[in-house]
Amino acid sequence: MAVSDVKVLGSWPSPFVMRPRIALHVKSVNYEYIEEILLESKSELLLKSNPVFKKVPVLLHGDKPICESLIIVQYIDEVWSSGPSILPSDPYERANSRFWAAYIDEMWFPALRGVLVAESEDAKMAAIAQVKEGLVLLEEAFGKLSQGKPFFGGDQIGYLDIALGSLLVCLQVIEKFSEMKLLTEARTRCLLEWAHRFSSHVAVKDVMPEADKFAEFAVKLRAKILKARATPE
Amino acid sequence: MAVSDVKVLGSWPSPFVMRPRIALHVKSVNYEYIEEILLESKSELLLKSNPVFKKVPVLLHGDKPICESLIIVQYIDEVWSSGPSILPSDPYERANSRFWAAYIDEMWFPALRGVLVAESEDAKMAAIAQVKEGLVLLEEAFGKLSQGKPFFGGDQIGYLDIALGSLLVCLQVIEKFSEMKLLTEARTRCLLEWAHRFSSHVAVKDVMPEADKFAEFAVKLRAKILKARATPE
Repeated sequence: MAVSDVKVLGSWPSPFVMRPRIALHVKSVNYEYIEEILLESKSELLLKSNPVFKKVPVLLHGDKPICESLIIVQYIDEVWSSGPSILPSDPYERANSRFWAAYIDEMWFPALRGVLVAESEDAKMAAIAQVKEGLVLLEEAFGKLSQGKPFFGGDQIGYLDIALGSLLVCLQVIEKFSEMKLLTEARTRCLLEWAHRFSSHVAVKDVMPEADKFAEFAVKLRAKILKARATPE
Repeated sequence: MAVSDVKVLGSWPSPFVMRPRIALHVKSVNYEYIEEILLESKSELLLKSNPVFKKVPVLLHGDKPICESLIIVQYIDEVWSSGPSILPSDPYERANSRFWAAYIDEMWFPALRGVLVAESEDAKMAAIAQVKEGLVLLEEAFGKLSQGKPFFGGDQIGYLDIALGSLLVCLQVIEKFSEMKLLTEARTRCLLEWAHRFSSHVAVKDVMPEADKFAEFAVKLRAKILKARATPE
């Protein structure tokens, strides 16, 4: 399939867009990246490609749209054998990777987002406590899954590295806003070292948003969410 | 592996528990079913097996716990070849099945649950509208994915059949409470016929809760949720 037959519809401030991009880099697949402007109107191409969720990222493989970041990562892993496997080959390890990725998206990320959009100090501190608790769980999971190797996926970046690593920039912004270190040497040393390795990995570093620029976007996003809350339809 | 090496921790009123059970039936795998009493305290075995979410279902395969209903279904499909494949073999069809299953769990089921726990007529009607809209989307998806065959999975019950079919009993209860037919001949004929086929399938019928008994449970669940809302921690 020609280069232009693989496209990613994305938007730079969406951490979820990093996921398919990193997976394509791991597989050495060339693709065209098409930038959507978030917080503004959505393009015809996005609305046509993902009419149900109307969200980035979307992978276009020829005329076939694939939606939802982790579903796209699995698709990329199944279609391209031009690089290391992203999901482990063992079904139990695969189930564990999927489990922790589900934990991250369903529990941990909502807590992280909760810190950003908290309207009271109590709500903010409760969300921060959840984020910290989650990091301790993920530190334990890293110990079990990496088995002394550099990544959750072992020697290579795998599914769970991509799932969690794509959200590191959000964690940095929350640390900045809350003036608090959440990923610490004392509590989560392995994860802290992993975060440095992940962020400087060749498949990752060029798609990781610059932290200050991302923080500016987060301020705008927060204002938009709080405004929407104050003026329900 | 001996029969007793496969166990399902479940609870009859949890529609999600049906998912691994149906998958095991499709694969003709014998298993021990261990009933948890929901709305009461949780067993040591459940807390030990799923310390993160503390929820049923859990599959115990030997000493390995696998959690989250759809992750378990994928695990069963990957481990046992003693029956038809549950996920399609084509990566794009697999991505589509995963996409609609994600839609069901993230958007459609929360709307269905929203009808049950709505505290105003407006909130209830808004949730019912979302449920109906979702059924129309799923009717369209059925047309595309089943390609004229009896199930989403083609000739056999597949991943999406299990994901949606396990929630049919919830839909029936909501129809009963709202005194409104939601799965109708006029709007969703294919899905209505599919629901009959699915519910009477040999892998399904013995694990589908009896509607009246399930409705009684739903009344208790509703009371518990509304009480928890009224008395926050």
